[in-house]
Amino acid sequence: MEQTPEAAPARRIDFRTDPSRYRHWRVTHDGPVATLTLDVDEEGGLFDGYRLKLNSYDLGVDIELADIVQRMRFEHPEVGAVVMRSGKDKVFCAGANIRMLGQAAHAHKVNFCKFTNETRNTFEAAGVESGQHYLCAVKGSCAGGGYELALACDYIMLTDDSTSAVSLPEVPLLAVLPGTGGLTRVTDKRKVRRDRADVFCATEEGVRGKRAAEWRLVDEVIANSKFDETVAERAREWAAKTGKGDVKGAGLTGIALTPIERSLQDDGSLAYSTVEVAVERDKRIATITVHGPDEDAPASVEALHAQGAQGWMLRLARELDDAILHLRLNELELGVLVFKSQGEGERVLAHEAMVMASASTDWLSREILLYWKRVLKRIDLTSRSLIALIENGSCFAGLLAEIPFACDRAYMMEGDFEGDNRPVAAIALSAANFGPLPMSNDLTRLETRFLGEPEAVAAAAGEKGVALEACDASRLGLVTEAFDEIDWEDEIRIMLEERASFSPDAMTGLEANLRFAGPETMETRIFGRLTAWQNWIFNRPNAVGEQGALQRYGTGQRGAFDMKRV
Amino acid sequence: MEQTPEAAPARRIDFRTDPSRYRHWRVTHDGPVATLTLDVDEEGGLFDGYRLKLNSYDLGVDIELADIVQRMRFEHPEVGAVVMRSGKDKVFCAGANIRMLGQAAHAHKVNFCKFTNETRNTFEAAGVESGQHYLCAVKGSCAGGGYELALACDYIMLTDDSTSAVSLPEVPLLAVLPGTGGLTRVTDKRKVRRDRADVFCATEEGVRGKRAAEWRLVDEVIANSKFDETVAERAREWAAKTGKGDVKGAGLTGIALTPIERSLQDDGSLAYSTVEVAVERDKRIATITVHGPDEDAPASVEALHAQGAQGWMLRLARELDDAILHLRLNELELGVLVFKSQGEGERVLAHEAMVMASASTDWLSREILLYWKRVLKRIDLTSRSLIALIENGSCFAGLLAEIPFACDRAYMMEGDFEGDNRPVAAIALSAANFGPLPMSNDLTRLETRFLGEPEAVAAAAGEKGVALEACDASRLGLVTEAFDEIDWEDEIRIMLEERASFSPDAMTGLEANLRFAGPETMETRIFGRLTAWQNWIFNRPNAVGEQGALQRYGTGQRGAFDMKRV
Repeated sequence: MEQTPEAAPARRIDFRTDPSRYRHWRVTHDGPVATLTLDVDEEGGLFDGYRLKLNSYDLGVDIELADIVQRMRFEHPEVGAVVMRSGKDKVFCAGANIRMLGQAAHAHKVNFCKFTNETRNTFEAAGVESGQHYLCAVKGSCAGGGYELALACDYIMLTDDSTSAVSLPEVPLLAVLPGTGGLTRVTDKRKVRRDRADVFCATEEGVRGKRAAEWRLVDEVIANSKFDETVAERAREWAAKTGKGDVKGAGLTGIALTPIERSLQDDGSLAYSTVEVAVERDKRIATITVHGPDEDAPASVEALHAQGAQGWMLRLARELDDAILHLRLNELELGVLVFKSQGEGERVLAHEAMVMASASTDWLSREILLYWKRVLKRIDLTSRSLIALIENGSCFAGLLAEIPFACDRAYMMEGDFEGDNRPVAAIALSAANFGPLPMSNDLTRLETRFLGEPEAVAAAAGEKGVALEACDASRLGLVTEAFDEIDWEDEIRIMLEERASFSPDAMTGLEANLRFAGPETMETRIFGRLTAWQNWIFNRPNAVGEQGALQRYGTGQRGAFDMKRV
Repeated sequence: MEQTPEAAPARRIDFRTDPSRYRHWRVTHDGPVATLTLDVDEEGGLFDGYRLKLNSYDLGVDIELADIVQRMRFEHPEVGAVVMRSGKDKVFCAGANIRMLGQAAHAHKVNFCKFTNETRNTFEAAGVESGQHYLCAVKGSCAGGGYELALACDYIMLTDDSTSAVSLPEVPLLAVLPGTGGLTRVTDKRKVRRDRADVFCATEEGVRGKRAAEWRLVDEVIANSKFDETVAERAREWAAKTGKGDVKGAGLTGIALTPIERSLQDDGSLAYSTVEVAVERDKRIATITVHGPDEDAPASVEALHAQGAQGWMLRLARELDDAILHLRLNELELGVLVFKSQGEGERVLAHEAMVMASASTDWLSREILLYWKRVLKRIDLTSRSLIALIENGSCFAGLLAEIPFACDRAYMMEGDFEGDNRPVAAIALSAANFGPLPMSNDLTRLETRFLGEPEAVAAAAGEKGVALEACDASRLGLVTEAFDEIDWEDEIRIMLEERASFSPDAMTGLEANLRFAGPETMETRIFGRLTAWQNWIFNRPNAVGEQGALQRYGTGQRGAFDMKRV
């Protein structure tokens, strides 16, 4: 609360939270049905300068929601339906807080949108992946980001009264887009007819009642008098649905997501139990070192459950996720993330094999794997240059090998390095590289990498379990280049210096295009097309200039526009 | 040449040209093989303030190229392979002229990129659709937009010498993207491995020789001494390839694309033989009225050929295409294009039926239909609000009905209008609405419209040939709304006023997202994702600010960047 988002050094944003600290959401449980009540504390904004009126949200509200969704999957496997509702009269949610957006720096706006998008994706994925379905019970005005919360749910119910409506008023009101997946979900998920979508997005007051259902904007319109009863009925129905690989079920006991411990230095460096982040602000580089497990893999599913959040695979996922989010929001000038690892590749493979073997029968194993899928997607979508350095002593094996495959480039040590007694650099592939951890384009990272040479995927699959040193890794096309002792240091230094000197905007655009070849999904469209247009608009005077609609919001004056079309 | 692109009123850009006026390209013919030689006249820039050095191009160079590609299809059906080469020593093409880009207004840059993208797509489509294959014979430096010309060809040959290389140096050199399809074609067409693509796009000097082929950047690397001979051989081979629906073939005689006649008034209004454009600058609206045929359909294929460019269907396509391009580049403040038609729907259907019936056997019929596909795509991609008004006396039948389906909204007159003696408003569907005229997402406009209700496409197909008045058109979901005499005038006026008042940027973003639901293709990715990121970068100080890389190009100073990542 001390500072506004554009101030520098910005207030540090901490993504770690737990139910005892929530200010904006209440969570209640009734067997297989959980209810999330959004009741935003107006005074609880993450920064100064705005009040969170009308259940509007800022990043702080979304950090709580992300935590709720994550805990629901690990702490409440018994839950099959989650009902989202409002704790306020007459308003469901007014969307992202406009004053916050108006005063935020471009980088904060963009990072805020990315995180809220990722969070929407997580509760949408919970239904598909784990049979934990989110339902939205809309009473009152549900506008902009509020309706985008609903759009990410599996089922939307709207009460039929004169004040309850869904709307995307961003374009007429603020001259920006509904950028948290709104436009994409309207056309591609809900498949609203395009001319109706156009009318809808140009109508400030939105659409209510039967028309909202007829236009496919909601799934059901319910008489006010029967609303609570019907919502409860639908929740029970959705909770009872069964799908492939569901984790939900009566009698299951969750594990506690214990606090993530970390130490943060003044220079920005950061240490967790399995992850270290060395920050070199002068070079604009953060080096993230991931540590393999010290212990053997759990001997049984029971042992995995007993370890809970302390088990290596889950602990590393949580720490890595936190580190990425921390760097994204708090270290804006670091242009390059270097990934390294240290540890025993065979142990990594043993932990992973234990979890994969039980993923079809044990909910926790399955959830750990699915969480890794989300963490790796978070890396894919991180708008920094990602470079993997595969050094001696590293353990990029199985799921950890996905990290170099997620990177823009990967360099590998080749041959002996004098005075370096660590085991020679090698990577190893496993079943984890060939299916369970797809990117947002729904292909594996190796399939995306070898779009032009599908036979190369098969060749790589033929070498599962083999410790592939530089020569083999190069031959299989798994690394960008390998350097020996003579060249390694200079080549890497020059490459990193060069990379960190490029225009950050050009790198963002380049990486957003090169990383996601092949098929498109709703996710790639949200992060590719919708986000890019929104970012463009966020730079245009018609929205963010002094006379722009976003700046003028609440002053009673409409935006003054340059009417040139481009 | 009198003015720079940012000056207002801008120099009027005329897209009409013919071989007698070319300054930058030479075209030679040798039976089934044509050769295009790019030999840019340095002094021939479309605007003042830059010289087109090193075979760099501006919009004027691309207008000639678009004309060449179009004439190749209509005037030279005997051609099966078109070889693109350079008329200069040591340089193939340096891409878009940087000084031109540096001084151009944002709107001009964006429109320039869109047109060049559309032109690349036309010669790429010529191979797929008509077996008229473009081959690129690269000698000398082939950089940026130069390599993007090559990427749109079906086959790229590179000579193996020390100066010949392909490169995309935009990111390191100019802090912008290779935005004319470059990034998308590297990943999705040529399927270059993503880490290699990353290295390639970060390497100013590019890649040459064997490595260029190994990385899939070119198809063949040829020893300098054998270059001309091999190019000639490949051209013969490609010319001999046969594919489905090929139009090429020895013995065919083209038709002449005679000049497009039009009259242009000071107020911007424009009249062609079949198209009128009424411009109301104060309201920011252009009304485009399309006229149906006055004559009966040609009685035979021979009659169609005899009519040549004067036949109604081809004439209208050319005039409409010219009008759209004219409005895009010369009337930047018109936010809304209103489409109307007048004429006899049955006659429209008769002309269309004649062409469609012979499209599988007659090259000209086929080319006319394929040209309509391109014109309609040009409308889809026009970044203005598109509104169809289906009035009494209109003829939105068959392929002309695609115009309202391409629009963001369509409004229709319902019932009697006093004093209006024209036939009551009706639209009619035909086979043309169900296949041959897909959008860039490869779906028909009706399939895209009814993504959520595929049964609605079938219902519409069941009413082919029926004159559908407002009630039926509404029932089938073909129009946004119908208004009777009492409401029509006010409703339309208010809607147009409102639309024209919105922020143009927000409308551009909205329309880019709502128009292209469903599957993605390379084209939608180029115009959606790549273009959006490029537009964003074109607004960022790191590229276009006073110290930005694009502005500083040629000064010897590198760009100075704000290093924040967003």
